[in-house]
Order: sequence, then C-alpha cells, then structure tokens
Amino acid sequence: MNFCSHCGQPVRFDIPEMDNRPRYLCDQCGTIHYQNPRLITGTLPVAPDGRILLCKRAIEPRLGYWTLPAGFMENGETTVEGALRETVEESCVDGRNPTLLSMISLPEFDQVHVFYRVDMPNYEFDTTPESSVVDLFEAGDIPWEEIAFRTVSATLRHFLEHIEADPVPVLNTAVFRHRR
Amino acid sequence: MNFCSHCGQPVRFDIPEMDNRPRYLCDQCGTIHYQNPRLITGTLPVAPDGRILLCKRAIEPRLGYWTLPAGFMENGETTVEGALRETVEESCVDGRNPTLLSMISLPEFDQVHVFYRVDMPNYEFDTTPESSVVDLFEAGDIPWEEIAFRTVSATLRHFLEHIEADPVPVLNTAVFRHRR
Repeated sequence: MNFCSHCGQPVRFDIPEMDNRPRYLCDQCGTIHYQNPRLITGTLPVAPDGRILLCKRAIEPRLGYWTLPAGFMENGETTVEGALRETVEESCVDGRNPTLLSMISLPEFDQVHVFYRVDMPNYEFDTTPESSVVDLFEAGDIPWEEIAFRTVSATLRHFLEHIEADPVPVLNTAVFRHRR
Repeated sequence: MNFCSHCGQPVRFDIPEMDNRPRYLCDQCGTIHYQNPRLITGTLPVAPDGRILLCKRAIEPRLGYWTLPAGFMENGETTVEGALRETVEESCVDGRNPTLLSMISLPEFDQVHVFYRVDMPNYEFDTTPESSVVDLFEAGDIPWEEIAFRTVSATLRHFLEHIEADPVPVLNTAVFRHRR
C-alpha cells in the first residue's frame, strides 16, 4: 500500500495512537487502513458410494496438483454459501448437507481455510476453467504426493481418520507456524 | 475506495474479465482490489465455579452493553491466538484450553465471528480501556436484554443449551440474512 484509497495521498506505516501495531495511515484525511486475514472456504465432496472428489488445478498456483474445491470467500455471503459456490465453480458439483470439517489458520499467509464435508446427490461433476480434471477417489487411491496445499492434505487426513464418527469433530489448528 | 492504493490513480468499479462480480479496478497499473469478509475472534470464558465472564463495553459501538471479549483478527496470528489476545485486551483474563464454540456469518456486514470456550485458571480479571466493568454471571443472571451483539447472544445461548455435551457441538450459522 503506497497511497490512501480514500483521498489518494501517500500513506505512512506507523503505530496509531491507542494502538499497538503499525498500520497504513493517511495524514491528509486521517483514515487508518486496517489489513486483516482472508477466509478461504471449500468442501470435501463425498459421492453416494463414499468416494471423494478431487480437482486437478488448471490455474496457478500449484497448477497440475490435486485439490479440494475452495476459494476466497466473497463479501455478502456466508461461509457455507462461499464453500458451495466454489464447489460449483471448480467441479460443477451441487453439494448438500454441509457439515463443518476443518478451520486451519495460516498465519504466515494471513489466511484462514474453512472446509465443509458435503454429500454429492449423484455422480454429476465436470471440469471447469479452474479444474482440468475432476475425479472420484477411493481413500486408498488419494495421490498424497500431488496434493496442492497442506490445508487440503490435513483436511483429507482428518476426514479419513474420523470417517466413522458422527458428527466428525472439527479440526481446528494452524499450519506454517514459523517465525515471521 | 476512490483511489488505487498501489499507484494513487482513480479507480473504477466494474466486473473484471474472467470474473462475475464488480471489483475496484485501476486502469493505470492494472491492480484489481479484492475486498473480502473480516474475521472477528473471541472467547466465552468460564470461571472455575462455572460462571461466565462478560464485559461492559467502554467504547462504541454498543457502549454500555455487555459482550464476550472479541475483536478483529490480525494478520500474522491464528484464530486461537486472536481470540486469546482479545480476551486479555478486554478482560485481562488468561484463557486456557480453547475449544471452538461458534462460527457465525454476518453477510450483511461482511464479517465472520468465531468464538472459543476457554477455561479461566482462577478468578483474576480486570477492567481495561475497552471494558468499563468485567464480571462473572450465573446462567440465570445473564442480562439478555443488554447484550451488545446478536452473535454474542447466539453463542451464549448455544453454550448453555449444550453445557452438558462433551465436546460441545460447534454452532455454524448466519445472522442478519436479509436481501442486500
């Protein structure tokens, strides 16, 4: 951030009065520009026969690696709405019965990833501009070495470890906890 | 948003190519300014005798109303770290054993509120610049008519309804779902 998005003047990076961490400040109009983590919402779609849907990424980052359908939550929607929208956009799947599966913080990336388990009502799925291949996998056939993101591996592993539990407990953890 | 925070030129609000919703766009430098929901993290602190800690707000909004300690999650922290930090800042309580209690979307406000149940190790708590009174309440004495926010009421009610459950199921819902 170089300029104030409100008045267009240059900003400085400094600790505001009554605060304890640096923010982008505009001395011209007084706006404090807070920056906060973003939410990524997605799903783990389960077919009627128990197989799990994965998407091969057609876009960067991690092009060619397998992922669960997920993406940035948008203003004006709920976490569930965001997860179901991304599932349509990446796999053409109409997910049903969302249950919260994982909430994983990535403090190094200023992100929080939230995944829901959803039922697929049938075997309808398709490729999209974001997914070059969409396919169903038995637990034993998941390509662990070709998973795009660590939050996806963690969510898949958590689901498989608790597949008999009802409800599946929510995984709540953090990854990439290094020194900044 | 009126100006590009990267190059300082005026932005326009329009749908980018390959997208389906309007964003703030800079024609000068090409930056697309995405805006996403923010996370609020907080806790429901339980004293050794089972009473619940509430804070009377010393600041706007909802000055003078009771709330659970909570605030905006910061870059570089996890959801749990954010919740525990806000608990110190608003009540001087050193929360322990956080367990996820609720995740509530407010699509009208572009926010997601996440609350953890935490144990208080003792009866140490105090007022802060953000809380004019901090006190412990029996379930029957909670001032329901003077609670600051609907996500706080919903989280308190959910906790009390499931107080015997182990683990308490996670409330995952939305409030303020009106037409925009």
